[in-house]
Amino acid sequence: MSFILKPIGIIHSPFKTKDECPIQGANASDSEGSVEVFIEYQDGLKDIELFSHIILLYLFDRAGEVKLIRQTFLDDEPHGVFACRHPCRPNGIGLSVVKLIKREKNVLKVGGIDVLDGTPLIDIKPYVPRFDNVPDAREGWVASKQWRSKPKGRE
Amino acid sequence: MSFILKPIGIIHSPFKTKDECPIQGANASDSEGSVEVFIEYQDGLKDIELFSHIILLYLFDRAGEVKLIRQTFLDDEPHGVFACRHPCRPNGIGLSVVKLIKREKNVLKVGGIDVLDGTPLIDIKPYVPRFDNVPDAREGWVASKQWRSKPKGRE
Repeated sequence: MSFILKPIGIIHSPFKTKDECPIQGANASDSEGSVEVFIEYQDGLKDIELFSHIILLYLFDRAGEVKLIRQTFLDDEPHGVFACRHPCRPNGIGLSVVKLIKREKNVLKVGGIDVLDGTPLIDIKPYVPRFDNVPDAREGWVASKQWRSKPKGRE
Repeated sequence: MSFILKPIGIIHSPFKTKDECPIQGANASDSEGSVEVFIEYQDGLKDIELFSHIILLYLFDRAGEVKLIRQTFLDDEPHGVFACRHPCRPNGIGLSVVKLIKREKNVLKVGGIDVLDGTPLIDIKPYVPRFDNVPDAREGWVASKQWRSKPKGRE
């Protein structure tokens, strides 16, 4: 069984290369970008401007080889691909929570973007604290890791 | 341009029909289910047990007609499909944050599940408060809505 995705838009960001791209949007709250939703899907944005944050789902369209266990950007110890947010994963779908700054017709200006320029967009969902907030969740191996530069050659 | 997804597992839940299925896991914290990851992907779970919550991405494999503007389970006023979490959407991918109760080899016991039994799993990501928590996010049109039963015939 398989399922075919068709992009509904394109994400524009200041990041042209993987090295420039922040590890997470939470580490790049000043980075602004825009989410262009193709005109045929524009009606689906009705009322999105009522939300302050949105969840973007997108394709890791330039990701490298998938490995089930690997080193990550934040840690030199290897972890399972489902225990990290690494872009090289089976079904290469990325998820980012971004700030919705404003809407201009079919374009959303967003803050805290952490994706490569030109990334294919596949879905937008409103971020709803009542559904999505788990403030006391345990951060696992990430808890003790501080933001750092991406190690060279780690994809 | 299109992209093919291939399920990495199956989600088992107590919900056999859409009517039984809760509107959100946050409204069903007692509901338990299990996430079966296919054996060939089991290594990718290494260290996942360090996290208390995980994000499931899955296919809305029994969703009905896609409409860009529609009534939702929580509101009789219509909203854009990208301003709600309705299952009938372009690229029918669902997202749920669930509690990870325990891991048994390739099976994860989870709490707060809100998906239909037999749902195809496409990704698991660790929930990391530093990345995913936005406690002061504005809840948009959802803010004033209380949990209720699903209106009949709303898909």
